[in-house]
Amino acid sequence: MLSKSQISFIKSLHQKKYRYQNGIFIIEGIKSISEFMRSRYRFHSLYYDPSFFLSLPELPANIRLFEINSVELAKISTLQTPQGILALVYLPEEQEPDIKTLKGHFSLLLDSVQDPGNLGTIIRTADWFGIEHVICSPETVDVYNPKTVQSTMGSLARVSVGYTPLLPLIEAAAMPVFGALLQGQSIYATNWGQEGFILLGNEGHGIEQDLQKKISVPVTIPRIGQAESLNVAISAAIFCSELRRAELNGAC
Amino acid sequence: MLSKSQISFIKSLHQKKYRYQNGIFIIEGIKSISEFMRSRYRFHSLYYDPSFFLSLPELPANIRLFEINSVELAKISTLQTPQGILALVYLPEEQEPDIKTLKGHFSLLLDSVQDPGNLGTIIRTADWFGIEHVICSPETVDVYNPKTVQSTMGSLARVSVGYTPLLPLIEAAAMPVFGALLQGQSIYATNWGQEGFILLGNEGHGIEQDLQKKISVPVTIPRIGQAESLNVAISAAIFCSELRRAELNGAC
Repeated sequence: MLSKSQISFIKSLHQKKYRYQNGIFIIEGIKSISEFMRSRYRFHSLYYDPSFFLSLPELPANIRLFEINSVELAKISTLQTPQGILALVYLPEEQEPDIKTLKGHFSLLLDSVQDPGNLGTIIRTADWFGIEHVICSPETVDVYNPKTVQSTMGSLARVSVGYTPLLPLIEAAAMPVFGALLQGQSIYATNWGQEGFILLGNEGHGIEQDLQKKISVPVTIPRIGQAESLNVAISAAIFCSELRRAELNGAC
Repeated sequence: MLSKSQISFIKSLHQKKYRYQNGIFIIEGIKSISEFMRSRYRFHSLYYDPSFFLSLPELPANIRLFEINSVELAKISTLQTPQGILALVYLPEEQEPDIKTLKGHFSLLLDSVQDPGNLGTIIRTADWFGIEHVICSPETVDVYNPKTVQSTMGSLARVSVGYTPLLPLIEAAAMPVFGALLQGQSIYATNWGQEGFILLGNEGHGIEQDLQKKISVPVTIPRIGQAESLNVAISAAIFCSELRRAELNGAC
């Protein structure tokens, strides 16, 4: 049985302001929760329907457990169809992206991506393709938004996601910047080299002007039909796939 | 000024049952509405904030026009943030996919895709890559769901989308079926030939057993990292991109 103040505390975490004020975010569903338990994230508390007790993974020390019923769960859940189990997890400490760890790899840079589902899907896709770092401009939607967390399908437990102004990062890193633009060279003829940033822009306005100037290789996904643009998560996926194809198959 | 019964009629179209009962669906936003006006779709009526009057494209004959205020628009809109203009459009007549028009091309087959945003994004991506036909199993989410229409970004006006049982279609067409599976040959080494179906499955359960038996080429997007799966719209996009890359670059 949850108290009114517990319920209102958890509901407050649906909003970014209170997530950062309390340093806590919400994850839901047994699969995501299990993946986060195997990660560096630390748990605050767990709220579950008694039928989930046996399927719980080995629990971290000091976690607070609450058996609750479906009415209570519906009150605190961020989902239209709650999944029987919800956890509160501590936000990780904010860390500046360490340029040394980016060297020799490819990372995604997101300039002001606004849709929480797009961000989550990008993180899930990065995880599939073994891209370890997703670095967001400060204007990008919060990665601990419940819709983002949900659409990463557990990949947020593995992919490192940071927020930092992209211009100084690009200048300091001195690595090639492959920018997703409508006028660039064909992605199918791009020589990726050994390291770099894949830069993707906002859903409506693309990549900001100052950042565009930093693009070393403007890259376009050739359009055969008539759509005006691609969804940003789709573009990100095609970039990741092309990059890995070139590595796996050798230059083509 | 809209009457109560007009408002409740339009609101009823938010639900699939009433869309098909009345043969009408909703589109919103000036960009989508303009693209549908240039297409084979026929319009029933248009509801707009007076500030949109000058940006309206040339209007079809017999369309009913209603200037409404933002309070009324909020009542009938399917969006959290209404975009100032909403249209009612007649559902096109249902047509069985014509196998002759599929021959010599690649088409997408969707087996029970459930998420309206995924379906819309797949249609938008198909439009970008010049894939003209998306054919859905009857269990697939309704393409005239407002979220699907919205996420096609106008591409629904151009891509043909049909619903039909996939098994008899595959048998009758006698074309190669490239199935997106977790165990198959690498997509980067696939020989696509000149025509075929790209078959994608449900978000949770993949491709149904009976359909799996019809796959002539099981294809996998190689996984380098640790995510368990890719979002279905992401998989669809990587298939479309690979197909077009092979055509543009020649076999690799």
